[in-house]
Amino acid sequence: MGAGFSSCSHTTTFFAASTTLFPHRSKSNFSTFNPHFKLLSQTLYYPKPTKITTSRSSSSALSPINSGGRAEEMKTQEEKSTQPMSDLHNIDPELIQRMAYDALVWTSIHGLVVGDKSVPRSGKVPGVGLVHAPIALLPMSFPENHWKQACEVSPIFNELIDRVSLDGEFLQESLSRTKMVDAFTSRLMDIHSQMLENGKREEIRLGLHRSDYMLDEQTKLLLQIEINTISASFPGLGSLVSELHRSLLNQYKEQLGLDSRRIPRNAAVNGFAEALAKAWEEYSNPRAVVMFVVQTEERNMYDQHWLSTEFPFSCFPQLCNTYDVTTIRKTLAEIDEQGVLQPDGTLLVGDQAIGVIYFRAGYAPTDYPSESEWRARLLMEQSSAIKCPSISYHLAGTKKIQQELAKPNVLERFLENKDDIAKIRKCFAGLWSLDDSDIVKDAIERPEFYVMKPQREGGGNNIYGDDVRKSLLRLQEEGAEENAAYILMQRIFPTIAPTYLMRDGICHKDHAMSELGIYGAYLRNKENVIMNEQCGYLMRTKVSSSNEGGVAAGFAVLDSVYLN
Amino acid sequence: MGAGFSSCSHTTTFFAASTTLFPHRSKSNFSTFNPHFKLLSQTLYYPKPTKITTSRSSSSALSPINSGGRAEEMKTQEEKSTQPMSDLHNIDPELIQRMAYDALVWTSIHGLVVGDKSVPRSGKVPGVGLVHAPIALLPMSFPENHWKQACEVSPIFNELIDRVSLDGEFLQESLSRTKMVDAFTSRLMDIHSQMLENGKREEIRLGLHRSDYMLDEQTKLLLQIEINTISASFPGLGSLVSELHRSLLNQYKEQLGLDSRRIPRNAAVNGFAEALAKAWEEYSNPRAVVMFVVQTEERNMYDQHWLSTEFPFSCFPQLCNTYDVTTIRKTLAEIDEQGVLQPDGTLLVGDQAIGVIYFRAGYAPTDYPSESEWRARLLMEQSSAIKCPSISYHLAGTKKIQQELAKPNVLERFLENKDDIAKIRKCFAGLWSLDDSDIVKDAIERPEFYVMKPQREGGGNNIYGDDVRKSLLRLQEEGAEENAAYILMQRIFPTIAPTYLMRDGICHKDHAMSELGIYGAYLRNKENVIMNEQCGYLMRTKVSSSNEGGVAAGFAVLDSVYLN
Repeated sequence: MGAGFSSCSHTTTFFAASTTLFPHRSKSNFSTFNPHFKLLSQTLYYPKPTKITTSRSSSSALSPINSGGRAEEMKTQEEKSTQPMSDLHNIDPELIQRMAYDALVWTSIHGLVVGDKSVPRSGKVPGVGLVHAPIALLPMSFPENHWKQACEVSPIFNELIDRVSLDGEFLQESLSRTKMVDAFTSRLMDIHSQMLENGKREEIRLGLHRSDYMLDEQTKLLLQIEINTISASFPGLGSLVSELHRSLLNQYKEQLGLDSRRIPRNAAVNGFAEALAKAWEEYSNPRAVVMFVVQTEERNMYDQHWLSTEFPFSCFPQLCNTYDVTTIRKTLAEIDEQGVLQPDGTLLVGDQAIGVIYFRAGYAPTDYPSESEWRARLLMEQSSAIKCPSISYHLAGTKKIQQELAKPNVLERFLENKDDIAKIRKCFAGLWSLDDSDIVKDAIERPEFYVMKPQREGGGNNIYGDDVRKSLLRLQEEGAEENAAYILMQRIFPTIAPTYLMRDGICHKDHAMSELGIYGAYLRNKENVIMNEQCGYLMRTKVSSSNEGGVAAGFAVLDSVYLN
Repeated sequence: MGAGFSSCSHTTTFFAASTTLFPHRSKSNFSTFNPHFKLLSQTLYYPKPTKITTSRSSSSALSPINSGGRAEEMKTQEEKSTQPMSDLHNIDPELIQRMAYDALVWTSIHGLVVGDKSVPRSGKVPGVGLVHAPIALLPMSFPENHWKQACEVSPIFNELIDRVSLDGEFLQESLSRTKMVDAFTSRLMDIHSQMLENGKREEIRLGLHRSDYMLDEQTKLLLQIEINTISASFPGLGSLVSELHRSLLNQYKEQLGLDSRRIPRNAAVNGFAEALAKAWEEYSNPRAVVMFVVQTEERNMYDQHWLSTEFPFSCFPQLCNTYDVTTIRKTLAEIDEQGVLQPDGTLLVGDQAIGVIYFRAGYAPTDYPSESEWRARLLMEQSSAIKCPSISYHLAGTKKIQQELAKPNVLERFLENKDDIAKIRKCFAGLWSLDDSDIVKDAIERPEFYVMKPQREGGGNNIYGDDVRKSLLRLQEEGAEENAAYILMQRIFPTIAPTYLMRDGICHKDHAMSELGIYGAYLRNKENVIMNEQCGYLMRTKVSSSNEGGVAAGFAVLDSVYLN
């Protein structure tokens, strides 16, 4: 997550609701306002508002998008613009204070929590060092047509990833140069090669993806940032945020005038749980378990626990209660230590047969500090367990493959239906390899319209603004080989809207932008597709920074969608 | 709460499940064992088990009980003894470890949490510094007949408190000597006197009580420790503990062989919420709100929030969702600052009319640091708002009144039904004033069979063992007046059972004893009793200490009941 959080050059306006007003009214139901709760950001976030300035030029500057061969979509997209949900500047600060208090109570008693990084044990021992997850106080406005578009392409992306994963040659060839400059991708590809050599086939394939989008303000295009095919986070907490926002909108219906039914139902956690359970059924060994591959420390453990323990909303099926599925949690090092492959391909960890492997670790180089972890990854890949993801699914989600798929005629290699191809292509932002000298030249001249993305996962490594120019010039001096470690992507300028962000018990108002993630679940066996659906969403909202370089600073909070 | 946690002189045996065994099996559903979670008590709680010694003498030593005029009940009580729920010594340490992990996850995502005292803001700002509530891992075995007995007397105690509250003369007379030595009781009585003088009547009366009991091991008698008529805590978290235990028993049914249906349904939170909502209805002002009177800092705030926000089990009605009732939270100081009494008796706080006042503060002298808080208490008492409790209800729950009610022929002043009187009396432990020279003489000779209780609320102030002798001798030297500050109570020796206690993410085994609290809700108007029921329970379990003085050391954890 996090990769692709592009930013425009707005300067930031900070604002905090006054703390001097104590509420004398509480007109709505379930308000439990406590005056001891204050908007603690007072001292931190109360400089005088600074003027918002926009440094980007007119829309004509967006021409690089067109070099990606997508000029036509710009016209076919609907022109309906994103409306602010309501004018947040006009909300009574006292009302915000009450809603913020209620939201904090809600998070605490409904498990919308994470481990607090200031408490050392909070990433290892459940139940200690809990703090509410960072959240937006209210849902983010989003145009219904773009919402529908994102949902509609979800099953197509699921299918596309599956098809790409089966084309070992395409994966190896597309990534061959990346392999030479990126050690992590190289190790993944080694395992992939070995599987190809051994003729290893994954008959049952499970994908739990999250495809991330931003809505470009100028062009009104919904553009894909990336697709996460491994360890897509927040299906659990994301579902809860939608519930929280629905509660608040019902609660403060009179004051806000918003309709909670315009927050789409978010079934991410039950969709994922259902897919895992159905995969376990497909494995057909009632004694086998579902193994969560986890990091040694995990402050986001409750998001994972929501998948495997009972869910508070009775309408949601539960992995454990609906199906009699046992889950265990293991680190890569433990799997190396305790794992054994039986002659028939069954993976035993300890003395438990593993039916389904769900990765919530293993996506970043830091997850493999020694050979032990790589041995574990190989061992799992060699086994008959259903891997979510398999090494092929993992590679199919890399940025380089994203860029390759955006080339003309490549989608046609994997999909037959022309409509599906058009729908997918409509979501592609401009994506180029650094071998494209025209684009590199343009990016050096106008770096503000590009993002340079290293193959490496995990976000935060993207290069923006003048650093794009500098990096490209450095690469030109050093020679072509390093080029393969990066791709260039069209810079997206999303709508900036005033938003209330909450972290560590503090609510503050800021200008923020959002990224929409759509969860997709896919399961098939040798004969049939068993499940292929969009099952939920996650809005992540982030302060738009005033950094000269345009790098999105600040923190992302969990958010939901309000359709307009 | 906490008062009356008597202890026998068992030395304590500590035990911690081994941390060297990592689980290789997870046979049950929803197990999410993570090896990074360890029973951290290893270093703290792993001395070699010491021999359990019992210093108390034979049952003949219990003769002081009989001086209370209750000899006959000792024979009529059923003789069925408390059976340990199962032999916890034989539970596989690895299984305990897995259950403890699952329990910690459950608490975190179901809001069974409190503020962590090591986080300064945790008592003021919701959502930060959360930690799981201290809990017992498994429910405590309790004989079904005693359980039924405790439930059966609940409505009778509710009625008794109501009748006593109406007898202003009895309250003033019984407490007249306490008034002279206890400043806090004195202030409460001043308000009470003023109301009597003004002819103030409470037509609508709401009681949310918790009557606490211990089961005396020798006599097999269920004996009342005290009845809390103000601020009875844990209706919210207590209900959740029952749910947690039911989940674990279902989850580990195969391994534990226990039947989750033997944990009685715990509807404390919805019973209390329903009573508050019905009281609000009786007040008949749709614009009025329910006001929670709270402390400035409250680490147990989530227990309170459960009453006023939505509840995760759909079968439970909710104060806010079922009824359109707004709740606000105010400290006594704020009520003094913002409160105004209108000519018609309506209490306005800010500009909100208050329909129902629910005290979760105001029960201890420390809640009244200045005259401001006393002014607030008086203001509320003068108002037409329904007070839970009124000053009369508050006084009716004092230890001195408990002792007065235990005197021969006093219950008959308030109750007509002979069966009811017998049932209530059966629960009374030996209770004496210090004016009873025979008892004082006996207590000086055999202090181990008495507890000396100061009138002061809040527990932890009780005097045990040799300190009883010393205190009584000191009082004899100083003269009679101070006598009125204390009562003497028969020391109860509850069953001691091995128990797994969890606090701060640590699970350890210890010998512990339990106290059963029964929640009762009572509401009436001028004509009718609207609600009079036992609506839930709370088991509190505490390490039995080896302290020479016999003072119950260690901490109490929240627990539930397993009927046997």
